[in-house]
Amino acid sequence: MIERLVIVGVGLIGGSFALALRQAGQVRHIVGVGRSQANLRAALQQGVIDEVAGSAAAAVRGADLVLLAVPVGAMPAVLREIAPHLPADCIVTDAGSTKQDVVAAAKAGMADKFKQFVPGHPIAGAENSGVAAARVDLYQGRQVVLTPLAENAPAMVERVAALWQACGAEVARMNAEAHDRIFAAVSHLPHLAAFGLVDDLAGRPEADTYFRYAGSGFRDFTRIAGSHPEMWRDIALANREAVLAELEAYIAELEQIRGLLARGDAAGLEAIFQRASRARKNWNPNAS
Amino acid sequence: MIERLVIVGVGLIGGSFALALRQAGQVRHIVGVGRSQANLRAALQQGVIDEVAGSAAAAVRGADLVLLAVPVGAMPAVLREIAPHLPADCIVTDAGSTKQDVVAAAKAGMADKFKQFVPGHPIAGAENSGVAAARVDLYQGRQVVLTPLAENAPAMVERVAALWQACGAEVARMNAEAHDRIFAAVSHLPHLAAFGLVDDLAGRPEADTYFRYAGSGFRDFTRIAGSHPEMWRDIALANREAVLAELEAYIAELEQIRGLLARGDAAGLEAIFQRASRARKNWNPNAS
Repeated sequence: MIERLVIVGVGLIGGSFALALRQAGQVRHIVGVGRSQANLRAALQQGVIDEVAGSAAAAVRGADLVLLAVPVGAMPAVLREIAPHLPADCIVTDAGSTKQDVVAAAKAGMADKFKQFVPGHPIAGAENSGVAAARVDLYQGRQVVLTPLAENAPAMVERVAALWQACGAEVARMNAEAHDRIFAAVSHLPHLAAFGLVDDLAGRPEADTYFRYAGSGFRDFTRIAGSHPEMWRDIALANREAVLAELEAYIAELEQIRGLLARGDAAGLEAIFQRASRARKNWNPNAS
Repeated sequence: MIERLVIVGVGLIGGSFALALRQAGQVRHIVGVGRSQANLRAALQQGVIDEVAGSAAAAVRGADLVLLAVPVGAMPAVLREIAPHLPADCIVTDAGSTKQDVVAAAKAGMADKFKQFVPGHPIAGAENSGVAAARVDLYQGRQVVLTPLAENAPAMVERVAALWQACGAEVARMNAEAHDRIFAAVSHLPHLAAFGLVDDLAGRPEADTYFRYAGSGFRDFTRIAGSHPEMWRDIALANREAVLAELEAYIAELEQIRGLLARGDAAGLEAIFQRASRARKNWNPNAS
């Protein structure tokens, strides 16, 4: 049982973690911290949290577990702020979409308390944000990736894994570099590609006409273009090298398709579409 | 009332048209033609069609209305085949995703019966194909674009529009060039972009690992990569100039994002993501 859980950033991710742990009977008292007082008041009213703290520093005094669910660009400041006030047995974990940069921020900001930081990433996003989007079942059947530090006590990592499992998630472990490489490909690049496609259309004089005739394929392809701009700016920059490598590979693939189309190479186009279609149909999304 | 409706290509599109018109009480007898005898037998068993014809030429004798719902690459041969056998008052319409090339094929293949061809495009696709995917409500609330010819009698165009409305669709009209330009942007390019992204991943040695961690954003972004490879090869080639222009604009947009990311230009990235996110959230898909 967690006596005092602190959620820094009570939005979709942090709020859903609080709701799920409370339903699982894993937590007694939940403290919320955040930038928006209106959002925190809503979280209190919805019963997502029990108390609003004035600062992250004040919130973590006496805490057992702290979840940082803020945009990755905001992690360094929060980690620096809480470190001096953390009880020695308190675990800090996060929900950042990138891991190497958050680990580096924790190392720089937490000094001798670095070993109390267990990095994590729940694979559960949506285009909606804020506590109003939080759901008790958000993590049901989803994956959570932990990228434990060499410095972490195994029991601390187990504790974080068990809490995510109590939320209904499956927990995987890998190192932070592998995490960032994989998610650059399957998450960060698709977001940039969707933002780019919609921005390209939105900037045209006849944008309204184009959007009027867009159908269900466009709807699904571009759903993630409705994601939080500031959050995705931070993720792209935080994982810059891996995302650049993916962008370059993708542009090269599109150039290849452009060349085949320009030359009227029907067999070449069909081979690419065939391989993609087969791979997509064989994919069994267990994280959706 | 249509006495004899001929569906050439009894798949998702053709089968759903047949089901919807029958439910609306608009048709007495439905004849199906197609390449796959197994699919036609299934269509007969499911009550989608009443009769299987041995050839398109034989089917259209005595017909009131013919719907061509075959891949656009197969249109020229079908149009040539049916033209000599078409009754003088029979309307031919199609469901091709491109219009300029189908109109050119009709002009070349139908000779003096060209005026009986009313080009159309229902905006309703899915990654599934075949008659098993057909649904009576596929066109409910969807859009159908007609690109009438100068040669069409207004009453013929009205008749086709009324039938699509009887299926629950909204009917829009525009010229074939505008149609192809708009759909290159909102449909053809997104399909190529999704095929390209999945193919890029599928070709890597660690493809399985990547797919294992892909979440709901990836699922929706890549749904259309499961589409029919041959059909999309045909569409890309049929609308080559417009699709090439869209591919080039998209690659330029991705190059711009790559440049901003390489330079660490946070404000520049956020401006693009912001514009895309606002446009996507303001878009109200009435065709989904």
